[in-house]
Amino acid sequence: MNNNIIKPSILPGFMELLPGEQEKFNDIVNKILQVYEKNGCLAIDTPIIEKAEVLLAKTGGETEKQVYSFKKGKNELALRFDLTVPFARYAAQYYNELTFPFRRYQLGKVYRGERNQKGRYREFYQCDVDVIGRNKLSINNDAWVISLASKAFKSIGLENYKFQISNRKILKGILNELEIDNSKDVMILIDKYDKIGKLSFDEELTELIGKDKSEYLSNVLDIKGKNEEILEALLKLNVKNNYFMEGVKELEKVKQVLEILGVQDKEFTINLKIIRGLDYYTGTVFETLLIGNEGYGSVCSGGRYDNLAENYTDNILPGVGISIGITRLFFVLKEIGFLDNYNIKKKLEYLIIPIDDTLEYCGAVMKKLQEKGIGAAIYLEDDSLKKKMNYANKLGVENVVLIGEEEVMKNEVKIKNMNLGKEIRVKLEEL
Amino acid sequence: MNNNIIKPSILPGFMELLPGEQEKFNDIVNKILQVYEKNGCLAIDTPIIEKAEVLLAKTGGETEKQVYSFKKGKNELALRFDLTVPFARYAAQYYNELTFPFRRYQLGKVYRGERNQKGRYREFYQCDVDVIGRNKLSINNDAWVISLASKAFKSIGLENYKFQISNRKILKGILNELEIDNSKDVMILIDKYDKIGKLSFDEELTELIGKDKSEYLSNVLDIKGKNEEILEALLKLNVKNNYFMEGVKELEKVKQVLEILGVQDKEFTINLKIIRGLDYYTGTVFETLLIGNEGYGSVCSGGRYDNLAENYTDNILPGVGISIGITRLFFVLKEIGFLDNYNIKKKLEYLIIPIDDTLEYCGAVMKKLQEKGIGAAIYLEDDSLKKKMNYANKLGVENVVLIGEEEVMKNEVKIKNMNLGKEIRVKLEEL
Repeated sequence: MNNNIIKPSILPGFMELLPGEQEKFNDIVNKILQVYEKNGCLAIDTPIIEKAEVLLAKTGGETEKQVYSFKKGKNELALRFDLTVPFARYAAQYYNELTFPFRRYQLGKVYRGERNQKGRYREFYQCDVDVIGRNKLSINNDAWVISLASKAFKSIGLENYKFQISNRKILKGILNELEIDNSKDVMILIDKYDKIGKLSFDEELTELIGKDKSEYLSNVLDIKGKNEEILEALLKLNVKNNYFMEGVKELEKVKQVLEILGVQDKEFTINLKIIRGLDYYTGTVFETLLIGNEGYGSVCSGGRYDNLAENYTDNILPGVGISIGITRLFFVLKEIGFLDNYNIKKKLEYLIIPIDDTLEYCGAVMKKLQEKGIGAAIYLEDDSLKKKMNYANKLGVENVVLIGEEEVMKNEVKIKNMNLGKEIRVKLEEL
Repeated sequence: MNNNIIKPSILPGFMELLPGEQEKFNDIVNKILQVYEKNGCLAIDTPIIEKAEVLLAKTGGETEKQVYSFKKGKNELALRFDLTVPFARYAAQYYNELTFPFRRYQLGKVYRGERNQKGRYREFYQCDVDVIGRNKLSINNDAWVISLASKAFKSIGLENYKFQISNRKILKGILNELEIDNSKDVMILIDKYDKIGKLSFDEELTELIGKDKSEYLSNVLDIKGKNEEILEALLKLNVKNNYFMEGVKELEKVKQVLEILGVQDKEFTINLKIIRGLDYYTGTVFETLLIGNEGYGSVCSGGRYDNLAENYTDNILPGVGISIGITRLFFVLKEIGFLDNYNIKKKLEYLIIPIDDTLEYCGAVMKKLQEKGIGAAIYLEDDSLKKKMNYANKLGVENVVLIGEEEVMKNEVKIKNMNLGKEIRVKLEEL
């Protein structure tokens, strides 16, 4: 007995999976990354720890409070809280060595000291695509990045998602037009709309901007209908503000290009209540809800940022990106039962079990299987046959190769299919 | 002009790659992970941040000084400094849910506040395989994990590696036999042998244990020859100590099983000077040198630990593992020119370039290509044709698909092979 046992545990708010779930998690990640790669995105990887002044150059408020930061020697360090800010830093830093428009993808862990609650993690994976242009970046890209999210979801067999798309310029234009001073407070309130509900929202909005303006704005936010109907209704508002006009035009274009890039109209809806909390978005913004499970919040979001690198360079580097919060997504997929039917082929296809002293022959069998690209391993412990078969069962391996002295003498292998319970004998050279 | 520009930079001792290099890095990682998977290892993932008391339960000395630790709220946190300690914690924590022997692989970043020097990183990837048994674990596994390192290196086309293998019990037995009290100091000194050279080593050793014992021990460490000759020479020493006998027997077995598992005799050498700095190893220990480039140190190491989980559980969980320090390995492979000839197929095979207003048709072309599993993307900016072709060139994409109004009218595509400079025309439906 060791009297100094430290209870094995991890910190609250951190996700850790058992191997069976991890296999599914990794499969989902790999499929998404493959979509990104096949669509011409280049991988980058940035440090998890960066200089605090670099990471926190633009943020403030809520985000900054959540950042893990600490001192090491005389350096103020921070753990990245997203992959977008480091990417802006990366694009500025290697400006002369990159080819623009630079389409990059990145998978990585990020850190936020959120209040501990279900489905919210303090360490979580993001799986991002961003494209950054030199001086300019076509609005086509806003649709393109969303189309990658659509392909990513389809690649894992997920169908009940719906993108909620807006453009910040539309609201900015309307607020300008209404001559509202405290527009930031209004934006923060709109961001909370779904959380607090229409009644509280209208009440608080009236407090902020008065009855008339509040009614007008609330009606705009509530415009419902098909995507083209919402766009039409917006135009009919007859707001002459430039931001507004540009926002509507961009949203129209995004809708059109989404369809060109294979995203069906039913996959997305225009939702003017989408703001995105983070400060850096300037145009297109979007979130992704799972239909029937909206309560879990967005599983993929992003948008257009015109000035994210401005703290690091005088070059103009507009960008647009998406971020799939895989850790949260995985949690939700588990909760809604999606993972129960998510089956993957076992990488280990053959477990070779030596009976008696036949390890050398087992080595030859493994070599033969692996040369064909088949996953194979030998059971290496000195245990009873029952225990060995039990192990194969627990691993869920499909085929067990049994090698006793008889097999060695006859130059054969005995293969037992664990699903069918059938045994066959094959000559080693015919394996 | 923004007057508050923060110079975009990362912390010293952190590796960051440009996309071309990142592509090679990821390809190397993927090949190694595939070897692990195909050999029956299951993936796990553990948090980068853990409770300090958990991570530091066993370490001390050098390692502890290098650990990144900090407070968040009232919790003492630390960043993991390897993947083995978290794995021991994991195995203890999920003991009842895991199938033993549990063969796991893990890829992840680890952190050590090392002195900043060439090829030493403070954040680096490790790519590990460990197998942990319940109560016992056959010595076969010591050879098996090394055989995976061999397969991993072969999978990336690396050939000039040589495993340096020893067993700590051999030295422990000899030091016991010599009745040396300060055996820990002696071990630390032996660990430094290659760094300080034979002359200084002998001098310091004499200081520690006197002339006679020092000469004897130094001669043992210098035994040279083929692997079987070294084993023979060890047996001839006629040390009757149990540790010693067990160590030699285990080493002999490892040699034998390595060959059974396809590791050739020329791939490894018995080297009694191998200690491994970390405290937790108890039997087999090994490092990996690149022949002709030994100065870079070990690129893969590991060994047997009988008691690593003892701080977390009363269950007996002996294990053995290997760790490939991919970040360091990548640095070395770059330095020695290996990467210059490391070519990978571009994931983006076709860049579709719209001429005139043909985006919709380009979308159909992309769909057709991607349905066949081909990597394809559309150039989405409104630029001159020259600029578009220049972009394709810079990306190194093999095929450019040009879509002008003519192609749309004729329902064709024009494909230009950028390597051969040849153009062909194909009907869209025949693509």
